[in-house]
Amino acid sequence: MIRYPDGREYKNSQTKKTYNKKGSEANRGMNLEDDINASNEWYRDQDVCVITKRPTPINIVKVDYSKGARITDAYFEKQSTTDYNGVYKGRYIDFEAKNTKSRTSFPFANIELHQIEHLERVLRHGGIAFFIIEFELKDEVYLIDAKYIIERYRNGPKKSLSYEEIKEKGILVERSYNPRLKYMDAVEKIYFSE
Amino acid sequence: MIRYPDGREYKNSQTKKTYNKKGSEANRGMNLEDDINASNEWYRDQDVCVITKRPTPINIVKVDYSKGARITDAYFEKQSTTDYNGVYKGRYIDFEAKNTKSRTSFPFANIELHQIEHLERVLRHGGIAFFIIEFELKDEVYLIDAKYIIERYRNGPKKSLSYEEIKEKGILVERSYNPRLKYMDAVEKIYFSE
Repeated sequence: MIRYPDGREYKNSQTKKTYNKKGSEANRGMNLEDDINASNEWYRDQDVCVITKRPTPINIVKVDYSKGARITDAYFEKQSTTDYNGVYKGRYIDFEAKNTKSRTSFPFANIELHQIEHLERVLRHGGIAFFIIEFELKDEVYLIDAKYIIERYRNGPKKSLSYEEIKEKGILVERSYNPRLKYMDAVEKIYFSE
Repeated sequence: MIRYPDGREYKNSQTKKTYNKKGSEANRGMNLEDDINASNEWYRDQDVCVITKRPTPINIVKVDYSKGARITDAYFEKQSTTDYNGVYKGRYIDFEAKNTKSRTSFPFANIELHQIEHLERVLRHGGIAFFIIEFELKDEVYLIDAKYIIERYRNGPKKSLSYEEIKEKGILVERSYNPRLKYMDAVEKIYFSE
């Protein structure tokens, strides 16, 4: 297993189809990123929307051309934006996915300032922006509008959001066989129904 | 200089500000990717739009944790989508940038089938999709709607677009000091004026 410097598991960005197909073994609940990636593949193949994960930026120091352009020295960079973006019904969608092992709150320390700034820009330009937050130990995933999180992040009063607050202001994302996370149902509900 | 297996120059995805600032040395016309990245930074800082380059996907084989998560074996993967996407006036924007050394035509061999398929999906979901094509030896850059290119790519009759055809169907992108490529002017003209 390959890990980032901060301990999170690294996934190669472009993997084989990972959503559940008839006959394949169940692979649900591996982790939030896997679940979102598999859901995005399913949504793409069902022609619901096109949402992709931005590959992890890597700074390359040395390449060995004698081995067919094999990278022999490089290091991870921080994503300067969020992890996911794409299009649904003509609208621009942009979000960040985060998980926490806390049962009681989501600490803002999990969010980088440049991600907040990126989402503020997206909102200024009329895009749809949100967070997907997983409470790992409760096995619950919430979708919550970025405006709400940004307001709290910028103005406090606390350096976290309580579980109750997220439950009240966000929408619980249903799990299913396909897609593993029905988060576009929540998007439809928040941003497209009136 | 680091190169991809196909010989193109590799750029680390997240570089320092590269657009022209007072007092900085002129760095125009380095190459198409540089020009677009610098223009995107300028557009972002001027609050015109948020368009970002997807980092180059890299498949990591080995990481040396004794050196602080240094990647010691990895290789380039092909982008499964296009290189650029983002938001302008609430709409989703997606495009691929290509250059050619030909003076007479743009060969479709420069485009990957999966890029065509990705752009077809984007169009189905109401996004704005185009190509930016540079004729290097003429120092001319055109923005041309993806629908037109896809139609020709899929149905022929030729395996290329002639320079005249691109000149007629596309829009010449003006160069300036900032942004280096005023391609959002062309976007505004094609997709937002009536």
